[in-house]
Amino acid sequence: MPTAAMIVIGDEILSGRTQDVNVQVLARALGEKGIRLAEVRMIPDDADTIVGTVNALRAGHDHVFTSGGIGPTHDDITADCIAAAFGVGIDVREDARAILATNYADPERDLNAARLRMARIPDGATLIDNPVSKAPGFTLGNVHVMAGVPKIFAVMVESVLPGLTGGQPMLSDDVLIDRGEGDLAAPLAEIDGRYPTVSIGSYPRVHEGRFIVNIVARSEDAEALAAAMAELRGLA
Amino acid sequence: MPTAAMIVIGDEILSGRTQDVNVQVLARALGEKGIRLAEVRMIPDDADTIVGTVNALRAGHDHVFTSGGIGPTHDDITADCIAAAFGVGIDVREDARAILATNYADPERDLNAARLRMARIPDGATLIDNPVSKAPGFTLGNVHVMAGVPKIFAVMVESVLPGLTGGQPMLSDDVLIDRGEGDLAAPLAEIDGRYPTVSIGSYPRVHEGRFIVNIVARSEDAEALAAAMAELRGLA
Repeated sequence: MPTAAMIVIGDEILSGRTQDVNVQVLARALGEKGIRLAEVRMIPDDADTIVGTVNALRAGHDHVFTSGGIGPTHDDITADCIAAAFGVGIDVREDARAILATNYADPERDLNAARLRMARIPDGATLIDNPVSKAPGFTLGNVHVMAGVPKIFAVMVESVLPGLTGGQPMLSDDVLIDRGEGDLAAPLAEIDGRYPTVSIGSYPRVHEGRFIVNIVARSEDAEALAAAMAELRGLA
Repeated sequence: MPTAAMIVIGDEILSGRTQDVNVQVLARALGEKGIRLAEVRMIPDDADTIVGTVNALRAGHDHVFTSGGIGPTHDDITADCIAAAFGVGIDVREDARAILATNYADPERDLNAARLRMARIPDGATLIDNPVSKAPGFTLGNVHVMAGVPKIFAVMVESVLPGLTGGQPMLSDDVLIDRGEGDLAAPLAEIDGRYPTVSIGSYPRVHEGRFIVNIVARSEDAEALAAAMAELRGLA
């Protein structure tokens, strides 16, 4: 199965001011596509860190997705960092500028120098469609550069994923069991051992003041998954 | 300012099945303590990956915090991986077993082999208190190993942080401005340039169908922060 990594770029996440919601959106979409999200890194708005992280991850995965830092303000440095990571130039590109202009009633007046920053695209990149606010993301090599605003991130994921080559989608099923995790551990390990193509996880949660357990099974093999789930449901 | 890294361990996060909420809890608590959360990595339940990530991050930061994988089931491998990362032994420890036993009406019956896994503590570690469900976390060197269940993670953060040496707390303030980010970019960059000890971030959000901007300023210097904020409020 192809693998992907995600880089969440933003001081606002690491300071705790903002709750990230983009990881889950990308993770689910990749799962349906048959691409495994193998790693996520959340890093600050620091150029050296961004360049180093992009280069470390693009070498080890089929795809890298970034969120954040492609707006018009001084703290939006992602596009320049991607260009630096690939060692290519970056400048305002005419097709990106034309797309951006459609977002303004009077582009001559409103498409100022700051907003034109959003049309700066590294050499050789292809644009990612943004139906929400026009300012495009871009794909360079195997790196997909997307906005951090959740509504825009989500539509960019929808724009990018159909063009990627996926694998067999990971199937999953789960059962909620009203028993203590410690009582289930032995039979779970036993079932897990007998189904080598099924990965079984156990996730306790607090419900009405006591612990219950969500048992999740994941596999690319529908038949094995169904057989394992039948046994897991028998533990309830 | 001391720095910290966090490792979120769990297939359920990377599959998109579960929304992480622990990063924000730790990030906020560290900020109040004057410790900067410099990096977060989300990784799968894979022993080699866990060991490698722990060793990479504990060398580069004052503190490393992990969440997830310390329960009683077969997929709970974090404690063993921490022992492996430090090259120390791991076994059931009497003090941890005694704490765990207080959670069960009949420990002789209920503290089975699976649950005793939660009393397995790497050699040389100190325990982290868990008022919710007793099963302790632990600190080994500069690595703090905590549960993934959000309620337990949160109380473990409260147990650990008072014992750490913090720096000057990072102060922050913000103002919501009902203008387009592109119109604010030039004055924001100008103000940011004049306050080198203040970090200014710009975060657009969608509100009633249009974009508004949250401007966040962060600094260890209360006076500089107040001066910068006065200017930022003037942009509204």
